[in-house]
Amino acid sequence: MEQLCFGVDIGGTTIKAGLFNQDGMLLNKWEFPTKKSDIEKEFLWDTAIFIESMIRERKLDRNGIIGIGVGLPGPVMENGEVLELSNLGTGYFNIINELQEMTGLKVKAGNDANVAALGELWQGSGKGYKSMVLVTLGTGVGGGIIYNNDILAGSKGAAGEIGHICVNEKEKITCGCGKKGCLEQYASATGIVRLAREALARKNKQSKLYDKDQLNAKVIFDLAKEGDVLSLEIVEDACRYLGIALAQVAQVVDPEVFVIGGGVSKAGSILTERVKEHYNSHVMDALKDKEFRIAALGNDAGIYGGARLILSSNA
Amino acid sequence: MEQLCFGVDIGGTTIKAGLFNQDGMLLNKWEFPTKKSDIEKEFLWDTAIFIESMIRERKLDRNGIIGIGVGLPGPVMENGEVLELSNLGTGYFNIINELQEMTGLKVKAGNDANVAALGELWQGSGKGYKSMVLVTLGTGVGGGIIYNNDILAGSKGAAGEIGHICVNEKEKITCGCGKKGCLEQYASATGIVRLAREALARKNKQSKLYDKDQLNAKVIFDLAKEGDVLSLEIVEDACRYLGIALAQVAQVVDPEVFVIGGGVSKAGSILTERVKEHYNSHVMDALKDKEFRIAALGNDAGIYGGARLILSSNA
Repeated sequence: MEQLCFGVDIGGTTIKAGLFNQDGMLLNKWEFPTKKSDIEKEFLWDTAIFIESMIRERKLDRNGIIGIGVGLPGPVMENGEVLELSNLGTGYFNIINELQEMTGLKVKAGNDANVAALGELWQGSGKGYKSMVLVTLGTGVGGGIIYNNDILAGSKGAAGEIGHICVNEKEKITCGCGKKGCLEQYASATGIVRLAREALARKNKQSKLYDKDQLNAKVIFDLAKEGDVLSLEIVEDACRYLGIALAQVAQVVDPEVFVIGGGVSKAGSILTERVKEHYNSHVMDALKDKEFRIAALGNDAGIYGGARLILSSNA
Repeated sequence: MEQLCFGVDIGGTTIKAGLFNQDGMLLNKWEFPTKKSDIEKEFLWDTAIFIESMIRERKLDRNGIIGIGVGLPGPVMENGEVLELSNLGTGYFNIINELQEMTGLKVKAGNDANVAALGELWQGSGKGYKSMVLVTLGTGVGGGIIYNNDILAGSKGAAGEIGHICVNEKEKITCGCGKKGCLEQYASATGIVRLAREALARKNKQSKLYDKDQLNAKVIFDLAKEGDVLSLEIVEDACRYLGIALAQVAQVVDPEVFVIGGGVSKAGSILTERVKEHYNSHVMDALKDKEFRIAALGNDAGIYGGARLILSSNA
């Protein structure tokens, strides 16, 4: 009998789900909005109901479904304990116990960035490696660490929070996390735009950026590739902070490969090349010249990683 | 038949060895100088010969000796591969294969700081925990990370190199590793003395430090405890850099406990308290208020950890 599993990526805006076979092939995927109401943990009920309806609709044999692997936007301990999910308005609960109870299926879970990292290692840019650091540059900066093919979750599920490594002691503006000088303040899509606003406000260089109606990371990277000096400086600044942070990560976990994902990573090789140079000048010799790659799975990394959580625990 | 094992800590100056029973009790320990000559890997031959002579002298049953666990001063991969040991003048070799060949006994090995961390987790200040970060403040700054009761060695054996995390982008002086602004330049015994020399050279504050013939970490911490303002500032500076570095480590691996060892750690609670405060102001909320402890095993941590490598692999 063919064995199947679900990978689910629960985010603040949408819930993504994928149905996988035991070889890790994605058979189908779906996406639906994360409802926000007063019902407690509605996202969990919605997930359970969706999976139940897919099983019925597709006439799947329930005995062939070996489990559901879930990524959640916050710290998740290996035993499923979640202290809080600020994006989803929940306090403490155990995702594994509750979703198992709701579905009658085996559940595994992790932090969304960690689960996405597992997906990239399994079927994406980390394929063939055993240890990897994924950093995702989106609205914020997320991170996930894989060590010996497993998620490094940390004692309270808060490992791999690369976006909140302090890279600038001098920063005056406070990050969303309450600290100052976090990587996220410089290398996220919003951080890069902030760097650009500051550079433009200095008004000491000509730049095509002044002619743009909309300032976003893509516009800045595109102009940098065309040789616009100010845009190049902004890109260099963001890449320097990212290189510094990844150097610190390497001094701690010494991975085989760094994978950069998220919307900003569409910039491609200019990003990996500049980050690698700054990385190299901030690590010990033994850690120099690691592999730097752009993520391959895009928004599907999370559902792949969820499936992998189930398939590897079943192997 | 009682099972025994050896824990060996090979350093640049001395080689320490301990004989342990299967309950982890240290039955005997020895220390002898690391010879420096032109003979290649003499330290390895010396270790093998010493163990052989102990087996004979104490009439130990060779069949009851389950192995030798070794710590080496440099990166060691999980399979025993060593790229180089600059302190001992060797290039690439495989410590496990070579020492097994020499002794006929099972060998396990790791980086000395990692092995010491394992020792502290097993029988020292990390007892009862599963994940721990050890930072040793001696002539240099060493680090070892334990995750899920195991050494986190890294892909090239260079994980946990906390001493060479960059904590000061503005530093002008080069660290022994070739980089600038490494934690080791501020929080090692020599780093603290350097901070003191710089503070004294500013000549803008009275201090009993001016009356001291010898400037060392103990003198500075002792005066700080007496309330000497300049000494307190120096201690605060060193603890701030250490707090910043450990915050970065926590963002990556989220351990349960931090243990501070090495000669400087004799300063005691002033160190853990000041470091913890700076740590707390540099981590996300989910990582605040970790346990900070002073190491318990002193120079024996390495031989304990060596024994643990063998006993845990034999369990």
